[in-house]
Amino acid sequence: MAGDKPVFLVLGAGAGIGGHAAARFVAGGYHAVLARRSDEEGLARLVTQIEQAGGSATGTLLNASEDGTIEELVERVERDIGPIDCALYNLGAQIGNRSLEETPHRTFELGWRLGCFGLFRLAHAMLPAMVERGKGTLLVTSATAAVRGNAGQHSHAAAMGGRRMLCQTLNAEFAPKGVHVAHVIVDGAVDSPDTLGKMLGDRFEAFKDAKGEDGVVDPGALAETYWHLAQQPRNCWTHEIDARPWLDVPWWNDNPSPAIDTRK
Amino acid sequence: MAGDKPVFLVLGAGAGIGGHAAARFVAGGYHAVLARRSDEEGLARLVTQIEQAGGSATGTLLNASEDGTIEELVERVERDIGPIDCALYNLGAQIGNRSLEETPHRTFELGWRLGCFGLFRLAHAMLPAMVERGKGTLLVTSATAAVRGNAGQHSHAAAMGGRRMLCQTLNAEFAPKGVHVAHVIVDGAVDSPDTLGKMLGDRFEAFKDAKGEDGVVDPGALAETYWHLAQQPRNCWTHEIDARPWLDVPWWNDNPSPAIDTRK
Amino acid sequence: MAGDKPVFLVLGAGAGIGGHAAARFVAGGYHAVLARRSDEEGLARLVTQIEQAGGSATGTLLNASEDGTIEELVERVERDIGPIDCALYNLGAQIGNRSLEETPHRTFELGWRLGCFGLFRLAHAMLPAMVERGKGTLLVTSATAAVRGNAGQHSHAAAMGGRRMLCQTLNAEFAPKGVHVAHVIVDGAVDSPDTLGKMLGDRFEAFKDAKGEDGVVDPGALAETYWHLAQQPRNCWTHEIDARPWLDVPWWNDNPSPAIDTRK
Amino acid sequence: MAGDKPVFLVLGAGAGIGGHAAARFVAGGYHAVLARRSDEEGLARLVTQIEQAGGSATGTLLNASEDGTIEELVERVERDIGPIDCALYNLGAQIGNRSLEETPHRTFELGWRLGCFGLFRLAHAMLPAMVERGKGTLLVTSATAAVRGNAGQHSHAAAMGGRRMLCQTLNAEFAPKGVHVAHVIVDGAVDSPDTLGKMLGDRFEAFKDAKGEDGVVDPGALAETYWHLAQQPRNCWTHEIDARPWLDVPWWNDNPSPAIDTRK
Repeated sequence: MAGDKPVFLVLGAGAGIGGHAAARFVAGGYHAVLARRSDEEGLARLVTQIEQAGGSATGTLLNASEDGTIEELVERVERDIGPIDCALYNLGAQIGNRSLEETPHRTFELGWRLGCFGLFRLAHAMLPAMVERGKGTLLVTSATAAVRGNAGQHSHAAAMGGRRMLCQTLNAEFAPKGVHVAHVIVDGAVDSPDTLGKMLGDRFEAFKDAKGEDGVVDPGALAETYWHLAQQPRNCWTHEIDARPWLDVPWWNDNPSPAIDTRK
Repeated sequence: MAGDKPVFLVLGAGAGIGGHAAARFVAGGYHAVLARRSDEEGLARLVTQIEQAGGSATGTLLNASEDGTIEELVERVERDIGPIDCALYNLGAQIGNRSLEETPHRTFELGWRLGCFGLFRLAHAMLPAMVERGKGTLLVTSATAAVRGNAGQHSHAAAMGGRRMLCQTLNAEFAPKGVHVAHVIVDGAVDSPDTLGKMLGDRFEAFKDAKGEDGVVDPGALAETYWHLAQQPRNCWTHEIDARPWLDVPWWNDNPSPAIDTRK
Repeated sequence: MAGDKPVFLVLGAGAGIGGHAAARFVAGGYHAVLARRSDEEGLARLVTQIEQAGGSATGTLLNASEDGTIEELVERVERDIGPIDCALYNLGAQIGNRSLEETPHRTFELGWRLGCFGLFRLAHAMLPAMVERGKGTLLVTSATAAVRGNAGQHSHAAAMGGRRMLCQTLNAEFAPKGVHVAHVIVDGAVDSPDTLGKMLGDRFEAFKDAKGEDGVVDPGALAETYWHLAQQPRNCWTHEIDARPWLDVPWWNDNPSPAIDTRK
Repeated sequence: MAGDKPVFLVLGAGAGIGGHAAARFVAGGYHAVLARRSDEEGLARLVTQIEQAGGSATGTLLNASEDGTIEELVERVERDIGPIDCALYNLGAQIGNRSLEETPHRTFELGWRLGCFGLFRLAHAMLPAMVERGKGTLLVTSATAAVRGNAGQHSHAAAMGGRRMLCQTLNAEFAPKGVHVAHVIVDGAVDSPDTLGKMLGDRFEAFKDAKGEDGVVDPGALAETYWHLAQQPRNCWTHEIDARPWLDVPWWNDNPSPAIDTRK
């Protein structure tokens, strides 16, 4: 179905990072397989856009938190579409700020299922074939919560902290087998209609305006960075990279304090 | 049952870190509650040792990976023994080095249940009462795998990476409410008969000998550091600290290379 | 002059961290040598306080940025007073927030001389004797700027970043020779009349009040942590530890945002 | 002299990273200015290669450790050649592994002059014009020693640790003014004839062979990453990125240990 094209598989293919990454890889000669949990119509629209631009893509709905689903998808793609050359794990687990009391056990567990376990399952199902072929790339969208745990982020940060360490253990085992694993710390709000847009609803445009000119990450720009990572030859692989808008204060910085703030 | 003594609760009370920490806090005037998964006899021995030294302690078996167990324990201690002033989450999730293929889904999930979710459950059950009292300490034994993911450590590192971020989110929410959360990175082998000792069996003594003089962490020494952390006044709280034997190469260092290793 | 007492040497012995550390080590049986750049009267007061409390101490003025001074001091102490068992490098390089334009070359260089080079010089002069004796401790007061570079902190952060890496290289070489090097990240304002107090002048009391109850690090409390570090047996050495008041937001955290802050 | 072309300035323009970056930017439409300390002939060769490929470049010798030199170069380029759109600070300070005793004061100071102070001086001299133009990029080649201090790396690590923090303070001040600062952690040996090649001499080819196929970073591949960073639009800027060959163990990992290595 992909013909001779290499396959790019994206889990979490909304109109933001996932969709733009798919479009970028298609522009580079890939067949894209887009998987997302819901909104069949939105999914069809992404596939149609890619086809109208002269590319080829497949869309599929997927409940990644359910056992067996990622495994079935990988098997199906490898069998019916073609060898997966590059995959992007783009599922988020952000639920906004909630106190510990407002974070029930099942929420914390679901955060882990999407934020960490799903990546493990994808790796488990997909990497053996890549190792056999001696090459492949696993890109992982990550978040600031992977490197620091802010108040209210119990579920998200615990999941993302696990995701980051898992990317390191995967890289440690699979880089010498030819598989490139890259962990991308997105340290700023992204112009994603299907995630941030839906969370903010009517307030989305005002939110973006308040961020200033070029104050929100364009998912198309981020997709170029993903493409670059996937093009790096194996003598020069990046494992971790961050990205944010110019006007955003990086996660490790405070806003400059007017008063003297000794020893900080 | 604890009389006027403050209560020190330890989850993962073997003959290593957990048992020594309990003994140290008892020496400092606490009543200790020791919880561990199995070996009723070994548990009774720890309690007896404490009592023979003039202290008071309670032992209880606990399957921490099972729903409701940690919750029931916290409730029981608060109701029947006394207010928990300090708790130590000392459950490990180390299973040795295993390739991804040798790490089945259920192993990865169990690692998370013990390494990350159990701490979340303890915090959920215990912190509200500490907040109400305006004080309390949560000590968390952690491992090198919380800060770097080595080959073969998929399950352990993903769990510990989540544990570390969770300690940060707990600290962010609860420090300003009077609860001290401290994350202790144990970056070396510990002289623990019930964990490392059982894993290595006959080879344990040879392993320690090979490490050299004072080459393995004495859990009694580490217990002093735990005690110090719990004594810090709230104007000067440590959130993260590491510890290792003098002869161990810290996790961020390589052994010095004889050849020139440019740019490393 | 120190008799049989081990010697504690502190560079940067004001009325804050340095003075309190000296008093704590004296209480633990040490003879203290206090060195500071200026204020002979303040220095004499610290020595007198120690003597009136039944301890012994020596005070000396020292321009640490000048070549040969640290070297001469170490030689003099070892020859005339006694073997240095523990030293605290407590010289700061904080000059408040200044833009790049307001940070001339000589300021940046002086920051390095005090913040980084002085520690190198102390290590160079002092560690050989400790290695010969097979034991010793080098405590280093450090700052948030050692782990993140905030706006306006060009000089301070570049110096402290170098200081932190130097502590790691010193530890890597000297821990296996019996010398304990510990890097203490003070991530909060300290109640230091001679540094922060002089910088803020009349505003110091208002500054502390605004921080809330126990909102500023008590240097006496921090001195207890220094003392603990110096007591750790060599099977269980801490290399890095942080400390801050309970109400302070740790350097890696933002203040919780009321709005949804996706992916942060 | 550059005509309408934007100018790419590289400090440390040998036949490795610096020369390849220059060639890459020239291929992208830039005029390159190559500065290096010595080897006028090698420099002329790089310029000729660029011109023969149809590009334009200027070569200049520069003793970056001497006061006024970087400043004069920036002024000359801006005045005589054209506005600097992108600069690469590519000066190293690696001197191989040396014990503290074998690292004299002047060596440590020179490491800082090249590894940290030179970058500060470049920023001081160059950034005001970039701010005035509202755009510009400062790329900084860095090393593993910026994030961990290995044994024997006193001079290099202290300089690089300062360099990394300085990149953060520069980014904090200048990103919101339109200047992109990126810190590139090169965590592997580079195929650089003028630096590593000269250090290893006859052993260089054997060294590369021992690293395995694609076991050494191709500076041309790294130059593509530099180019990508300079192309990122300001809504999506990377501040820190690492790179290494696939067969290299990342700095945070150990080689997998055959034995059980608990808690590491």
